[in-house]
Amino acid sequence: MMNKKKNRSIAPDQILIEDDFWSRIQTLVREIVIPYQEKILNDEIPGVEKSHALANFRIAAGLEEGEFYGMVFQDSDVAKWLEGVAYSLAVHPDAALEERADRVIEIIEKAQCDDGYLNTYFTVKEPEHRWQNLLECHELYCAGHMMEAAAAYYECTGKDRLLQVMRRMADHIDRRFGPGKETGIPGHQEIEIGLLKLYHVTGEERYLRLAEYFLEERGKNPDFFREEAARRDWTHFGMDPEDTYYNQSYDTVYNQKDAVGHSVRAVYMYTAMADLAGIQGNEKLYQACCTLWDSITQKRMYLTAGIGSSGQQECFTKDYDLPNDRIYAETCASIGLIFYAKRMLECDPDGRYADVMERAFFNGTISGMQLDGRRFFYVNPLEVNPGISGEIFGLRHVLPQRPEWYTCACCPPNLVRLLTSLGHYLWDETPDTIYSHMFAGQEAELEKARIKVKSLYPWEGAVSYTVQAKTQQAFRIGIHIPSYIRRMEVRLNREVIDAEDKLDKGYLYLKRIWGEADEIRITFAMPVRRIYANQKLLDDAGKAALMRGPLVYCFEGVDNQDASLQSLSMAREPNAEIYRITEGPLAGMTGIRVDGKALYNRSEALYTEETPEVKDVRLTAIPYFAWSNRGENQMRVWMRQE
Amino acid sequence: MMNKKKNRSIAPDQILIEDDFWSRIQTLVREIVIPYQEKILNDEIPGVEKSHALANFRIAAGLEEGEFYGMVFQDSDVAKWLEGVAYSLAVHPDAALEERADRVIEIIEKAQCDDGYLNTYFTVKEPEHRWQNLLECHELYCAGHMMEAAAAYYECTGKDRLLQVMRRMADHIDRRFGPGKETGIPGHQEIEIGLLKLYHVTGEERYLRLAEYFLEERGKNPDFFREEAARRDWTHFGMDPEDTYYNQSYDTVYNQKDAVGHSVRAVYMYTAMADLAGIQGNEKLYQACCTLWDSITQKRMYLTAGIGSSGQQECFTKDYDLPNDRIYAETCASIGLIFYAKRMLECDPDGRYADVMERAFFNGTISGMQLDGRRFFYVNPLEVNPGISGEIFGLRHVLPQRPEWYTCACCPPNLVRLLTSLGHYLWDETPDTIYSHMFAGQEAELEKARIKVKSLYPWEGAVSYTVQAKTQQAFRIGIHIPSYIRRMEVRLNREVIDAEDKLDKGYLYLKRIWGEADEIRITFAMPVRRIYANQKLLDDAGKAALMRGPLVYCFEGVDNQDASLQSLSMAREPNAEIYRITEGPLAGMTGIRVDGKALYNRSEALYTEETPEVKDVRLTAIPYFAWSNRGENQMRVWMRQE
Repeated sequence: MMNKKKNRSIAPDQILIEDDFWSRIQTLVREIVIPYQEKILNDEIPGVEKSHALANFRIAAGLEEGEFYGMVFQDSDVAKWLEGVAYSLAVHPDAALEERADRVIEIIEKAQCDDGYLNTYFTVKEPEHRWQNLLECHELYCAGHMMEAAAAYYECTGKDRLLQVMRRMADHIDRRFGPGKETGIPGHQEIEIGLLKLYHVTGEERYLRLAEYFLEERGKNPDFFREEAARRDWTHFGMDPEDTYYNQSYDTVYNQKDAVGHSVRAVYMYTAMADLAGIQGNEKLYQACCTLWDSITQKRMYLTAGIGSSGQQECFTKDYDLPNDRIYAETCASIGLIFYAKRMLECDPDGRYADVMERAFFNGTISGMQLDGRRFFYVNPLEVNPGISGEIFGLRHVLPQRPEWYTCACCPPNLVRLLTSLGHYLWDETPDTIYSHMFAGQEAELEKARIKVKSLYPWEGAVSYTVQAKTQQAFRIGIHIPSYIRRMEVRLNREVIDAEDKLDKGYLYLKRIWGEADEIRITFAMPVRRIYANQKLLDDAGKAALMRGPLVYCFEGVDNQDASLQSLSMAREPNAEIYRITEGPLAGMTGIRVDGKALYNRSEALYTEETPEVKDVRLTAIPYFAWSNRGENQMRVWMRQE
Repeated sequence: MMNKKKNRSIAPDQILIEDDFWSRIQTLVREIVIPYQEKILNDEIPGVEKSHALANFRIAAGLEEGEFYGMVFQDSDVAKWLEGVAYSLAVHPDAALEERADRVIEIIEKAQCDDGYLNTYFTVKEPEHRWQNLLECHELYCAGHMMEAAAAYYECTGKDRLLQVMRRMADHIDRRFGPGKETGIPGHQEIEIGLLKLYHVTGEERYLRLAEYFLEERGKNPDFFREEAARRDWTHFGMDPEDTYYNQSYDTVYNQKDAVGHSVRAVYMYTAMADLAGIQGNEKLYQACCTLWDSITQKRMYLTAGIGSSGQQECFTKDYDLPNDRIYAETCASIGLIFYAKRMLECDPDGRYADVMERAFFNGTISGMQLDGRRFFYVNPLEVNPGISGEIFGLRHVLPQRPEWYTCACCPPNLVRLLTSLGHYLWDETPDTIYSHMFAGQEAELEKARIKVKSLYPWEGAVSYTVQAKTQQAFRIGIHIPSYIRRMEVRLNREVIDAEDKLDKGYLYLKRIWGEADEIRITFAMPVRRIYANQKLLDDAGKAALMRGPLVYCFEGVDNQDASLQSLSMAREPNAEIYRITEGPLAGMTGIRVDGKALYNRSEALYTEETPEVKDVRLTAIPYFAWSNRGENQMRVWMRQE
């Protein structure tokens, strides 16, 4: 059961992160990734794959001569960068950056056609082919991303130039597609999210209805893309229009039971579905979201919140098919899972959504970025074996080290916009309740209160909320308590309170008339946990993984040099201890040591009857997100368990 | 060190198999596979992929109108069938079959061009393109197979019509290629084997020199195929002429250190190299063969004698990269490994060659054929999980059940010619010694003796040789003793003899003046053996496999229904017992039972902190070659080991 959304929108500048863990990452994004990406978009980094994305806009705007270059969705790189810049400006003003962003927006405005159409690929290269190939050509996808950027830029800077551009584009799309007009659905879902964001900032109902149309129309005619393909005599990528699972158009969104197809397309669609369900109080649509949520999180998700296990087409495969080494688990897909989780929380503040969101934040998303912010993974494996991973058929996409940038540069800018808008994911506020979804140090300027959070998370189980009420009326504060927490102490103004009866679906609810500086202090044990996978997971049977707090841990060769990782196993009684890493790029993080065994063959033979020797060893694990920061080496999350 | 070959050639009709294990298989081949394949070649099996191979010959012969159909190497299917028929006729005369084979040969003769050229693809379809695309077009490959058939048919029936055809083709090739003539090497090695067989039956030195030329020329100019491709404006498959590892033309045969590229091409080449080395007493070439032998058998071979681990291009990959589920291990490659092993034995009767030959005969080759002879595997995995294997990217080629026939029908006819000529692999005879390479019940009519072998192998360790000498002079009998045998009793005419000092490099040598009915009786223990893989094998660490005698065993789901196979492990003290299977298609075989554990999660969750329960179970294993004969189910050779 869900309720119609009553959230007050929290503006990006309301939340100021001040947190040991997240501030470092946000600073990295601001100081390294955003400027680096700006250079990329301007083709100023020698030796790196040319982007040409801004040049495409200048050419479309008539400011420059030249040819379009890049992927058909190259425009979206600019959109994602602008969105990230907007969120960054909200919490960290930077006049020079804003000035440069404004200039990019001016160019975008000039690249818009008189009829509102905006897409540099078609404007420059194939103007006669506009809207003929929704299956492959990403016009709606690019529009959706630019709408998100426009809404964010407006929210964060108050400037509406890009917003006006994208309203004109939305109007253009609205004139073309919809009931009684041309039938259309996007080949890559994203326009729905963009339109809903436009709706959130403008209140324009037509955008809501158009988003609804794209969702409701999808799968009504499973032959849509086949018929579209039959109407034209050209293709772009040569995609198979019959593969309606790939883009989730095989049935209506209400009838889809399993998470299938391209994982990013899928979670972007589910995100929009959940958003719309909440806005409309559409219980049927919310139930469809719940079914798909369960499909992912109960049967198709890695321990790291990675999703999409197929090395081909970045797709979901089957229930319980979660290979560690053949994996895809695209960074963008875990980011999309966070979008989805947040919208589900808005429908129903249930800890199971917050648990998955936290899992994704601390593991499968930030693992995509090197600790220095300069290299990025698309694929986030749970097992890597250099010499095999990245080289052998079936594993070529699984790289042991993050590369610098990609031709198809979706993941790095997606991480930027996620991490700069972290505050958005931490809170919701309804007329009677403030929800805190995840522990993170910060100052939150909410409607009903200013709340200062201090947190040692994820390294220690200690967090405090200091609440300065802005109202004399009682209201609730609901704090998500991660489901792994077994023992917890809650103090309200230093007095221990009984938390048990205040817990509901993973949230600790405290209701009172709040004062000037009421302090909620939560402390909890954060033992090393051993996790076992469902026996249906072929790769993980007989193995265990380590977690502590929200962090999944992994074993890297560099820390375990007694033997190759496959020779190691964890002891039945692992005698786990934690330690502070003091050197190298992981300095300051908490590592884990456990007892283990190492197998040794005395014989060098390929096969032998000689029983391997067993030696006692102490194994070392590090947080998964920090893997592959110390050179190429073996890694695995799941370790054989004695 | 090797010696120049002094073998007397053993004619196919000298060896008559009478063996519980092999006679069943030979009968199956004769009664089911050969007639089935004949129907296939004649396109008489409805619903099965059309072969058209004989039609191609009739069209090329001008006996029929029509177009060529099939792979560019379709002719080789007819060749392999004829070769199998020849061997079958040698030990089991069948006038009607021979009559039909004779008619096929007549058609082949008519399909030959006036200049000796024989290849239906080019004769029918692209006569102007003859010999322009050695890289892709298999003209030399098809010729090689037809030469093998011609030699076999002549040896087995005394009829030389096909032999004359193939001499003319060999002469045609000899006029075209060689020193001072056109430079050429085959894109798929096989012509070398064929020419050496022609040499063996005709004594024509030009064929020996031409085989030598093709081997010696290979890799001298690693750009050969690139230059060839540059000379023409067409391709057939679109193969990359730069990929000189794929076809082992990257360096001379002397300089190749690792087994690389397409595994069948590789072992066919090594076979010819070893054959030539023996004929010429070429120590340098033999040493090259030894290096490649070690590369395969010490670093790149599955326990089943499967080789070629890449699911793409049927290739070798890297040392110790032997994944069980992504495997290729083509039936033909293991057959080629037998060809290679036999030639190595002819150079140097060393038990390590006979061990691998035996391993391949009892495991990775015959696993390719269903027990009823009606279905065939190309790919012989060591782990199969229905629903995943055969369906998921990277594993699509790994089928859980044998299909009926293939478009590219190389493996089934290759099995036919191997199994009908089993006698060839069992013996060698030199002026002073008779070598028995593998235990099998039979009557062998050799130069120096008639030997009757009775054998309970591979089910029991009991074999006897009854020797009826044909000479008054002393000679040696060398009997290969598989290296796994630890305890053995040898009796000569019922008296126990000390075998220890009579063993040399895996052969038991008995020298004497043999009488009318001297009996050598060898009995040995055949315990269940646990095999451990080198720790570098990623998939097998912490696991063990079971063998008994020459047989690798595997676990199938149907026998172990307490849990999915990944949940099972073998006990540290497995308490192994053997039992006779009494029902179903495996009736008569010996199974193995061992103690094991099964893990159970009480929780249905994807991940849980709950330690899985452990139950004692009894596990059942069956001979690997007999897997997938009782419906689709899980299978694995390597079992987790407590």
